[in-house]
Amino acid sequence: MSGKKLINDPNDVVTEFIEGLVETYPGLQYLDGFPQIKVVLRADVSTTTNDKVAVVSGGGSGHEPAHSGYVGAGMLTAAICGDVFTSPPVDSILAGIRAVTGPKGCLLIVMNYTGDRLNFGLAAEQAKSEGYKVEMVIVGDDCALPPPRGVAGRRGLAGTVLVSKVAGAAADAGLSLADVATEAKRASEMVGTMGVALSVCTLPGQVTSDRLGPGLMELGLGIHGEPGAAVADLQPVGVVVSHVLKQILSKEIQYVPITRGSRVVLMINGLGATPIMDLMIAAQKAVPELQLEHGLAVDRVYTGSFMTSLDMAGFSITVMKSGPTILQRLDAPTKAPYWPVGAEGDRPPAKIPVPVPPPCSSRSNEMIIQPQELSEQGCILEVAIQAAADEIINLRDKLNEWDSKVGDGDCGTIMHRGATAVLEDMKKCYPLNDAAETVNEIGASIGRVMGGTSGILYDIFCKAAYTSLKGSPIITSKQWASALEASITAVSKYGGASAGYRTMLDAFIPALTVLKEKLDAGDDPLTAFLLSSEAAMNGAESTKDMHAQAGWSTYIAADLLSLVPDPGAMAAAAWYRAAALAVKKKLQPSES
Amino acid sequence: MSGKKLINDPNDVVTEFIEGLVETYPGLQYLDGFPQIKVVLRADVSTTTNDKVAVVSGGGSGHEPAHSGYVGAGMLTAAICGDVFTSPPVDSILAGIRAVTGPKGCLLIVMNYTGDRLNFGLAAEQAKSEGYKVEMVIVGDDCALPPPRGVAGRRGLAGTVLVSKVAGAAADAGLSLADVATEAKRASEMVGTMGVALSVCTLPGQVTSDRLGPGLMELGLGIHGEPGAAVADLQPVGVVVSHVLKQILSKEIQYVPITRGSRVVLMINGLGATPIMDLMIAAQKAVPELQLEHGLAVDRVYTGSFMTSLDMAGFSITVMKSGPTILQRLDAPTKAPYWPVGAEGDRPPAKIPVPVPPPCSSRSNEMIIQPQELSEQGCILEVAIQAAADEIINLRDKLNEWDSKVGDGDCGTIMHRGATAVLEDMKKCYPLNDAAETVNEIGASIGRVMGGTSGILYDIFCKAAYTSLKGSPIITSKQWASALEASITAVSKYGGASAGYRTMLDAFIPALTVLKEKLDAGDDPLTAFLLSSEAAMNGAESTKDMHAQAGWSTYIAADLLSLVPDPGAMAAAAWYRAAALAVKKKLQPSES
Repeated sequence: MSGKKLINDPNDVVTEFIEGLVETYPGLQYLDGFPQIKVVLRADVSTTTNDKVAVVSGGGSGHEPAHSGYVGAGMLTAAICGDVFTSPPVDSILAGIRAVTGPKGCLLIVMNYTGDRLNFGLAAEQAKSEGYKVEMVIVGDDCALPPPRGVAGRRGLAGTVLVSKVAGAAADAGLSLADVATEAKRASEMVGTMGVALSVCTLPGQVTSDRLGPGLMELGLGIHGEPGAAVADLQPVGVVVSHVLKQILSKEIQYVPITRGSRVVLMINGLGATPIMDLMIAAQKAVPELQLEHGLAVDRVYTGSFMTSLDMAGFSITVMKSGPTILQRLDAPTKAPYWPVGAEGDRPPAKIPVPVPPPCSSRSNEMIIQPQELSEQGCILEVAIQAAADEIINLRDKLNEWDSKVGDGDCGTIMHRGATAVLEDMKKCYPLNDAAETVNEIGASIGRVMGGTSGILYDIFCKAAYTSLKGSPIITSKQWASALEASITAVSKYGGASAGYRTMLDAFIPALTVLKEKLDAGDDPLTAFLLSSEAAMNGAESTKDMHAQAGWSTYIAADLLSLVPDPGAMAAAAWYRAAALAVKKKLQPSES
Repeated sequence: MSGKKLINDPNDVVTEFIEGLVETYPGLQYLDGFPQIKVVLRADVSTTTNDKVAVVSGGGSGHEPAHSGYVGAGMLTAAICGDVFTSPPVDSILAGIRAVTGPKGCLLIVMNYTGDRLNFGLAAEQAKSEGYKVEMVIVGDDCALPPPRGVAGRRGLAGTVLVSKVAGAAADAGLSLADVATEAKRASEMVGTMGVALSVCTLPGQVTSDRLGPGLMELGLGIHGEPGAAVADLQPVGVVVSHVLKQILSKEIQYVPITRGSRVVLMINGLGATPIMDLMIAAQKAVPELQLEHGLAVDRVYTGSFMTSLDMAGFSITVMKSGPTILQRLDAPTKAPYWPVGAEGDRPPAKIPVPVPPPCSSRSNEMIIQPQELSEQGCILEVAIQAAADEIINLRDKLNEWDSKVGDGDCGTIMHRGATAVLEDMKKCYPLNDAAETVNEIGASIGRVMGGTSGILYDIFCKAAYTSLKGSPIITSKQWASALEASITAVSKYGGASAGYRTMLDAFIPALTVLKEKLDAGDDPLTAFLLSSEAAMNGAESTKDMHAQAGWSTYIAADLLSLVPDPGAMAAAAWYRAAALAVKKKLQPSES
């Protein structure tokens, strides 16, 4: 993290967080006891209606979404929030117990910190003295340190979330308090966690510690900014994951009774400022490591930020021994907003084959080859393509010159590359007797070599024309007009430009207008195309007077733009006019 | 963010992310086309089975969970992933369309970036040419800049997630492609977004930009590390939220047709490294601002990290005009893992009253007062309490002396404070004829003044004893023994210590053993208590030979510990023995 925060009053952060949480999730409520009593509870449960065991957790804040984000049917009934990194006071815990506990009693799930144990403990004893049935399960899943003589050293970490889910699902299934407590306790004995941090968290209203210098990470840390078990040089994520898993599953430590052949669930937990991408990559490293190195079957993977430490960068890994009951509890539905939805159930194959194109595709596996003999239309098409491409090849330097004034100077070079490819490919494989397929192939040639925005736009231009033309062996002039219209529509839609934006459309749009007008008026097609191509050229010339609204030219001042036409529009008009003139020459050789 | 990453090969991050995502969510699969084709798709849909409109989105990676985290029934059918901040290639998009599109066709939801428009556009045209029905909706929800002459300037931001949800739900409801596209387009016109960053993101394999110095934030930025519209001094979150909302809802910009009286939905979106706590606080500021300053009704609030920019710190705010159809689509169930569950539906009152303690509580509203005349047991209890408290008061300096060697030196002072309060409160309000209630009141006196671990442990001790004793007007010796046992169990459980840990339990545990033994053997109660108190003292003395396993003494070397007993254990033994001796003197005055 940057260590910067917009939130600076540590006295308000928890109450404001709770208000925001409840605004976001209408299934949650809170007890009206700020600032002393900070309790989030299910909106659909009250003491009088609760015919199931209440499951309550909590602790210091700063670990969001833990624990308040796990309140919901099937998980926690209430969460007691302390100030940041501070155990909640007894009165707050007691208020929470009283608010949700019905005749079946209440299970407290408490992380193994002295303050939490004592405050929750005293609240439990007070509640018992008031007649409530209360049990407590203490979770200490930290595997960072070798066993001390007592159990005091094992901090509660992200594994607590899994224990809460098991308990909440057991309660939701209608079990008795004793049975819910037994399942939770058993789950707590099956789970181990270890963290690795890249940065230290920033407490609201305090400056960030610079304990962790550049190039360093901390292994085996807790979630309260306390120093970790060891500082090490940064390593690739695979190495770190491997190290952490070895420690959790270590035979010497043996906190968690997992041996080769066991089934496990895995949790990759972000510590607050770690992006989902990084967490998923850690999961991608951890699963095969568990399977191949440790001989374990991985039943479920939970990846996300479940138990954080404010804005700490890094993650923890939790491994829990799995089994039919635990899986059933973890998979059970819950309305808790932050329990990961969709992680339940068994995995189908991870990857499926890329689909083959349908047989109707022009790019099918059969080779398209030039016909032995050209039809009349095939001859005309060949002439038009040749002339259009030649014109672009001849115009290279002029286009570059214009583009150097209003763009990045390579318009001629890029168009030249496309035209050259078209001429080469035409000789090899254009099915010239099929105009639609030929247009499609022109798009493919251009798409293959041109690159850049103009390459892809011409590819789109051709593809749209192809879709419009295809299926007709002989193309009428009106069909060509419709194809041009489809091309213009597609280029405008995907490129984001319209008439007057100083782009190729300023050649094509007037060309289309004139073409349709003349054809509708009954002019002969050749005349219509020739007039249309004049309109294209006039349109392209008129771009001098336009403000640029797309492409590089948007960065150029208007007075500079007024000296040159848009090179893309000029290129479009030029190849279109050259094609029209060549067709005229072919059809009316005497008149040229 | 720290700018540190464990992940450094930019070529692998996206494929490894996808593998981790699919490991985590069994409802997702990917196309087997790495590294070129990176497509995440629903595991339960194929071209042949898909009888609904496919909804496909995508774009450059680095914005996780967008878009792959929104793949699931009711939202996206597939997500096409490019490299980090790079539009996916046409072949990848086309493969995704082919993999999920059935007879009803496919809607592409594309964020308004040139690369995405062109690549998705070309893929759409190619797919159409293959016979697929394809429509595209382009989302540009950025409100940071005043309207340019064209629409090119409005980037696609977090509002795209809401548009995808609307489209996915409409498709899931069985609508036609045209109708799904219409709803998506309408949603895209109803949504505005603006971001604020505290730090710049770190690209994999690159060093972090230091563009944003200390004390600065950037307003109106995009999600690709590009500079924002303005740099400003850090402000409190309420000020920032207010400014951003003003901009989005500005009459001058008027991107989003929201006027006073409109209904809206709100999205607070973390940019990658912002903790949930901070996002919820922003939500807590934004909701009343929308209601009170802008006169809007807030139908839904979505708070989380939905559309990120790698590890950027900061958030964006999105406001969408709401209405019956949009709400229905947003509320519809989905299996997409990252769509926020639980945000749907209407809000009950946010807060409910703190429950009053049940009438059985000893701390009820009726004043407990000292009885006018003491019973025989009341007299004995008074003598015992007086003697125990006097002993602790006398021992203050000795306890402090021991504690200064093995702890923090205040054991005597703290115990003295508790004993003094007990004597004062006893005179005022202990109901001495009711032993159980008196024990409970002792706990309350101690809890009120003592503080620290020992204070809360003695409160727990008394509370557990009270629960064990209560309901019996006359307490037998065996009941006292049971109460002691309950106290020991509670202190051990919540304090985490056992026999031999060098704590007060090393006095009480041997005391209980002897007490039960003697009572079971039929000894007279007074003798049993006297022998029990000797055992307590012996036990406390024996702590010299113990390793400390709880409390401050765990930090002290063993050879230093061997010189002094545990002061807590000595205090416990001392008051217990003093009480026993005082009772003996009361009952057998001749023998003392």
